[in-house]
Amino acid sequence: MILRMSSLFLRTLREDPADAEVPSHRLLVRAGYIRRAAPGIYTWLPLGLRVLRNVENIVRDEMNKIGAQELVFPALLPREPYEATGRWTEYGPNVFRLKDRKGADMLLGPTHEEMFTLVVKDLYSSYKDLPLSIYQIQNKYRDEARPRAGVLRGREFVMKDSYSFDIDADGLQASYELHRKAYIAIFDRLGFDYVIVKAMSGAMGGSASEEFLAIAENGEDTFVRSPGGYAANVEAVVVPQAAPVDASGVPAAEVVDTPDTPTIDTLVDALNAKHPRTDGREWTAADTLKNVLVMLVNPDGSREPLAIGVPGDRAIDEKRLGAQVEPAEVVAFEEADFAKHPELAKGYIGPGVLGSENTSKIRYLLDPRVAEGSAWVTGADKTGFHVLNLVYGRDFTADGTIQAAEVRDGDEAPDGSGPLASARGIEMGHIFQLGKKYAEALDLKVLDQNGKLVTVTMGSYGVGVTRAVAAIAEGNHDELGLIWPREIAPADIHLVATGKDAAPFEAAAKIAAELEARGLTVLYDDREKVTAGVKFKDAELLGVPTIAVVGKGLTDGVVEVKDRRSNTRVDVPLAEVVDHLVSAVRG
Amino acid sequence: MILRMSSLFLRTLREDPADAEVPSHRLLVRAGYIRRAAPGIYTWLPLGLRVLRNVENIVRDEMNKIGAQELVFPALLPREPYEATGRWTEYGPNVFRLKDRKGADMLLGPTHEEMFTLVVKDLYSSYKDLPLSIYQIQNKYRDEARPRAGVLRGREFVMKDSYSFDIDADGLQASYELHRKAYIAIFDRLGFDYVIVKAMSGAMGGSASEEFLAIAENGEDTFVRSPGGYAANVEAVVVPQAAPVDASGVPAAEVVDTPDTPTIDTLVDALNAKHPRTDGREWTAADTLKNVLVMLVNPDGSREPLAIGVPGDRAIDEKRLGAQVEPAEVVAFEEADFAKHPELAKGYIGPGVLGSENTSKIRYLLDPRVAEGSAWVTGADKTGFHVLNLVYGRDFTADGTIQAAEVRDGDEAPDGSGPLASARGIEMGHIFQLGKKYAEALDLKVLDQNGKLVTVTMGSYGVGVTRAVAAIAEGNHDELGLIWPREIAPADIHLVATGKDAAPFEAAAKIAAELEARGLTVLYDDREKVTAGVKFKDAELLGVPTIAVVGKGLTDGVVEVKDRRSNTRVDVPLAEVVDHLVSAVRG
Repeated sequence: MILRMSSLFLRTLREDPADAEVPSHRLLVRAGYIRRAAPGIYTWLPLGLRVLRNVENIVRDEMNKIGAQELVFPALLPREPYEATGRWTEYGPNVFRLKDRKGADMLLGPTHEEMFTLVVKDLYSSYKDLPLSIYQIQNKYRDEARPRAGVLRGREFVMKDSYSFDIDADGLQASYELHRKAYIAIFDRLGFDYVIVKAMSGAMGGSASEEFLAIAENGEDTFVRSPGGYAANVEAVVVPQAAPVDASGVPAAEVVDTPDTPTIDTLVDALNAKHPRTDGREWTAADTLKNVLVMLVNPDGSREPLAIGVPGDRAIDEKRLGAQVEPAEVVAFEEADFAKHPELAKGYIGPGVLGSENTSKIRYLLDPRVAEGSAWVTGADKTGFHVLNLVYGRDFTADGTIQAAEVRDGDEAPDGSGPLASARGIEMGHIFQLGKKYAEALDLKVLDQNGKLVTVTMGSYGVGVTRAVAAIAEGNHDELGLIWPREIAPADIHLVATGKDAAPFEAAAKIAAELEARGLTVLYDDREKVTAGVKFKDAELLGVPTIAVVGKGLTDGVVEVKDRRSNTRVDVPLAEVVDHLVSAVRG
Repeated sequence: MILRMSSLFLRTLREDPADAEVPSHRLLVRAGYIRRAAPGIYTWLPLGLRVLRNVENIVRDEMNKIGAQELVFPALLPREPYEATGRWTEYGPNVFRLKDRKGADMLLGPTHEEMFTLVVKDLYSSYKDLPLSIYQIQNKYRDEARPRAGVLRGREFVMKDSYSFDIDADGLQASYELHRKAYIAIFDRLGFDYVIVKAMSGAMGGSASEEFLAIAENGEDTFVRSPGGYAANVEAVVVPQAAPVDASGVPAAEVVDTPDTPTIDTLVDALNAKHPRTDGREWTAADTLKNVLVMLVNPDGSREPLAIGVPGDRAIDEKRLGAQVEPAEVVAFEEADFAKHPELAKGYIGPGVLGSENTSKIRYLLDPRVAEGSAWVTGADKTGFHVLNLVYGRDFTADGTIQAAEVRDGDEAPDGSGPLASARGIEMGHIFQLGKKYAEALDLKVLDQNGKLVTVTMGSYGVGVTRAVAAIAEGNHDELGLIWPREIAPADIHLVATGKDAAPFEAAAKIAAELEARGLTVLYDDREKVTAGVKFKDAELLGVPTIAVVGKGLTDGVVEVKDRRSNTRVDVPLAEVVDHLVSAVRG
């Protein structure tokens, strides 16, 4: 196939679009791959569509290889199945809802667990039908609060979602491993520098879950990894419960006067000044137990306060907290909320009033670093006062623990494999062992070998296809433009004819035809009255990995072949150039 | 590729689905190609998706051949462009509307004229950029009042829509002809028995317009054609204005007493009984002028009465009338409406009160068969009375003409090419010369050769891809099941192994592998413990055009090859069967 730039529906831009924050967004718009239609909603122009289809085809190919079967569900869906699983409500404002002309509630599918479950229920009835893996590559919709970065986080986007159906946990494990292998193959072919991290399953329910993150500075996800091979999404880091310590030598709790110390810093200073430790060490923030109040808003609008106790040297990580309380959302605990709880002495709140068994009745969850038997300085529930030597288990209790404190570089990995270091990534794939949540909610049962009805066990596996295009661009560009991996590029060869004479155009047209005959796709810059400089700039911006220039060298019988990634150039004799280019592409 | 029925996600049904009215719907569901998800909204199961993709690829291929370039717009669109062209309102309840989380109005695109126009405006600026043809193959949404017949008229469906952009009318004509040629190629390849008819352009605006109709008993569209080659959608038949006749010999109009004659039949009887003609002929319905009142409801909800005068022997055709008054809808003129017009004597309404210049102020349009100078019996605007010898142009006037009367078999074709005969069809494609309507509304101008800004001229071209699958099924089935044209079929060969021995399965597996190696797609029925009868029934239902059975014949060294369409069978020696099947497929 030959794409002629003289007629290609394409305009490259020299200026960055005003709303573009990240390189992939800037470059995909400037190179004429995508065009904004509405916030978070994009049109795919011809070259962009070619790239998108290339990504789709890699995903499809690897899914087919593991025996998954493609089908396609509607994007416009009835409410009922989502009502049955509770997600009609849980999704809150993230789902696009509408009514049809008869007033029936509908939604634009954000994910299709319900539909997949129902179609299997519809068609299958026996263990003999399993295992089954089915998938679709289809438009999904999420009404993101903050669509960002072009197609990196859009409101309409293409996803591959697949589901496995098994009779038991071993089957699920096998289906999960097959998908994991397929995903490794997909992300290798997409040319990603990626990491597989432990993940939270979020609103999806289920248990084991991993994410494939493309490592990228501009990623929205933070993950941590250790030299020993531990890797997890920050939300999924499970800090182990600190082992109990011996509290027998700890003196009795003592309330001390600490006026004007509503913050940890002011408290530590005041303690060192007025209540110095007896062991010669200074008080630090780590000796204090900070009690943070937040308000949870459930999808049905109901509100529930929550108190979290963390060592004073650690902040609450909003994303970790958010992941723990999903589908509830976390909002600030405001003055009006304090007004309803006169027992809370703002800045001096302590375990004396927190907890569902205590005066406030507010659920109180502790960071797992708080060991049984450990002693803390914490609020005395009286303005201007703190309490020393308050021992967990001896002097106070809590309703449980929560994984909400920040994870810091240097923290030991939960599996003891060394200190954690954080980096940023883009979530490209997510594989889950969903288990029976959806099968139970929608009553998907089959007969087992003994003729007994058993609930099917499911796995769920997603790849962000649209997002992959952005993430690949994010990881494959330089200051001049995009640099596509070969299998993703909109063309195999970018062929440029330059000069005012007919000769280079004739030679180039011949090369293009020969390359086409050899099965290559050629983006051929056959534009007349466009300077060589503009053509080179466009070629660099568009990012086809191999650029061949038929121009001045032609008088010496050579064509210049550039490698876009390494920026190396070589003059190839005209007679050899087709072979040379074919082997550059086919390796 | 080998699709093994032992693991294929497929269940064929012996029973017709309860809601299926037409064969294509019944068979596509029974054969496991599609599955209803909501009214008018379907899931495409693996075999169905293969068929859908085959249709898409034929369409894509032919569009690429005429140099049209593929891109893809979002399905979820902002209101603004549709507001600018007036279609946000015009579409009425046929469009799915919704609000995003910020309250912005959005819609699910029913067609994308606005988006195509805007993207060209966005990228192009000069006559040198034209001509341009761009297209997409994408999900469309229409909230049909009566979704019917499975995917024949759905609410979510795939369409190919393309648009041409030209600097002038000659350019548009050339682009239109190119598309017309491409459409002929497409519908030939899809195996349709089709007709190209003159069409109305409906809500689209524009002038010249043709439809490609698949001839089908269950089609929703009625078209007429003449022996001389005239063919038109019934809505688009333009009956010529009858030539004026000499009224000089017609006596003066005379009001006569015709009690209890509110219908044409009762009127004709009364006339013949009480007011016989003087020329010896009997009165017939054709001598009467029937005045029909309807109410038009505009998209903004406003209502406007309309009176239509037609010869008494012709009914009003609702579809023809509807097409004339679009985007208004036609509803009945009710008692409450009569109550507001005491001058209307129900059953005896005549031109005496109708017309915007007359007492009623109701717009009055005549059938073009009413010639200037022709005399009629019509209502005298007084209950129980009619008027004889009322001459058009002498005794009454009207506000214009309207093409709303029924077209009947035997009517002369408007171009004089013989008597019309009607048949039914399914609208598969529609090509229009849109002209400047959208370019003007959205200000799409380019510089012409003289540096002057000129408005671009557009063409619009659609193919119903989803509908094509149903229409092909509608035209290619028998009582046993589907019979796909080769290029559309979900597989090239349906290979069936029968019996309880291993031998046929081993031989069939070898044949399947060899066919796959030769590039064919094989649907291989490798199911054990399924009887030969069930397998044959499934093969007939599924409709792959060539069926090869490895069974009893194997002991004689032969494989039975059946042609699904002709129902012919031939025994082919095992050693030759692969070659035989390859040539059956490749011809």
